[in-house]
Amino acid sequence: MKDKSKLKRIPKRAVYNREEAYKIIDNNYICHLSFVQNDIPFSIPTMYGRDGNTLYIHGASVSRLLNEVEKGFPVCLSIAKVKALVLARSAFSHSLNYESVVVFGKGKLVNDKDKLLALKVISDNLLKGRWEECREPNKKELNATKVIAISIDEITGKIRDEGVNDHKEDLDLPIWAGLVPIEQRFLEPISAKGLDEKLEIPDSVQMLYR
Amino acid sequence: MKDKSKLKRIPKRAVYNREEAYKIIDNNYICHLSFVQNDIPFSIPTMYGRDGNTLYIHGASVSRLLNEVEKGFPVCLSIAKVKALVLARSAFSHSLNYESVVVFGKGKLVNDKDKLLALKVISDNLLKGRWEECREPNKKELNATKVIAISIDEITGKIRDEGVNDHKEDLDLPIWAGLVPIEQRFLEPISAKGLDEKLEIPDSVQMLYR
Repeated sequence: MKDKSKLKRIPKRAVYNREEAYKIIDNNYICHLSFVQNDIPFSIPTMYGRDGNTLYIHGASVSRLLNEVEKGFPVCLSIAKVKALVLARSAFSHSLNYESVVVFGKGKLVNDKDKLLALKVISDNLLKGRWEECREPNKKELNATKVIAISIDEITGKIRDEGVNDHKEDLDLPIWAGLVPIEQRFLEPISAKGLDEKLEIPDSVQMLYR
Repeated sequence: MKDKSKLKRIPKRAVYNREEAYKIIDNNYICHLSFVQNDIPFSIPTMYGRDGNTLYIHGASVSRLLNEVEKGFPVCLSIAKVKALVLARSAFSHSLNYESVVVFGKGKLVNDKDKLLALKVISDNLLKGRWEECREPNKKELNATKVIAISIDEITGKIRDEGVNDHKEDLDLPIWAGLVPIEQRFLEPISAKGLDEKLEIPDSVQMLYR
C-alpha cells in the first residue's frame, strides 16, 4: 500500500508530517470523495469532519453515494485550496500556490450509538462551537441521516508556498513576473429572514473574525 | 450512462444547463481527478483548462497519473467552491452554499501537433491573456510535458445559493441563524524577487481587479 501515496515528483512540496497534513484537512470545508462502482470512478464533493485518524461524512439515509462507501471498499479523498497564481516569465514555469491532501482509507457505517458524536465532528469542522448553540438532532432526523467513518490509512499533504521559479536564462526577459495572492475571507454575517432582532451574533460566528 | 449523473436528491439544486455548469468550471482553478488503478480509486488535485466540450490537464511526461489517465478508461472529475456557511437553528439544517460540477469522461493523449494549443487552454484558465505576454514553451519544455484531453461526456452542476431553511417548528427558537458569506479575492500582486522595477503590472493581472 505504501507506494500509493509516496510522492514521485517534486518531493520538496511534500508534507510528510501527519499533523501538518491534518491542519490542511481542518482548514477546509469540502472534500472530493472518490470510489469505484462497476469499474467507474466517482468523485463527489461533500462536507466532512475529522476526529483523530478518522474522517466522517454524512448524508441522507437513502444516499447512493453513502450506500456504496459504507461497503468498505477502498476510497480516496482529496482536499485542495488555491493560495496564489504564480506568474512566471515562461509559460512553462507558471503554477499555483496551494495546499492539498490526498487520503486513502475505507468506509464504515457509524452505528446509532456513535452517530450523534460523529455528527458533532462534522458540525465542528463547519464551525467550532456551533453544535453547542443550536438544536441537536432529534430521533427522526437521526434516522434520516447516515454517517460514514473513513479511516485515514494513508495521507499525503502537499504545499506550494513560494515565489516564481523561472529558469536562469529567462530572468532577464522584459516580462513581468510575480504572485497574485488569493485570499479566502469571511464577509459580514447575514441574519436569516424574520430572525428576532434581539438575537445577537453568537460566539461561534464572532470567532471567525478574530 | 445517463443515470450516473442524474441527481437523485434535492433536484432543485441541479444545474442541468451545460453552459451554466461550464461557468463553474471556468470560474475555478483546481479539479479533483479520479481514476481507477488496480481496483483502487485515486483522487488527485490538478490544474485544468476547458475548450468547448474538452478539458485539458497536463504534467510531467513521466507522471504516473497521466500515464494512467491517457489509457482511455473512464475518469471522473469534480470541482467545488464554498460560498457561505449556512447556520440554521437546528443542527440538522446546517449546510454550505457552494457551486460544484461533476464530470464523467475519458482521457486521451494530446499529440505533439496540438500540444501547444492545449497548453494555451490551461494557461487561459489560470489567467486569460497571460499566454500572449510570456515566453512560449520551447521544444525541450514541450517534450517534458504531457497533455491529456478529457471529453466531457456527462456533466452535472450543482449550486446552493440560498438562505437558511429551518423547519417551521424551529423558527421561534431563541437561536441566531444566518449566512456567513465566504469571498475569494485577489490581493495586490507581488513582483518576483529581482524583477526589473521598470516592468509594469501587465494587462492580464490588472484585469483581475476590475
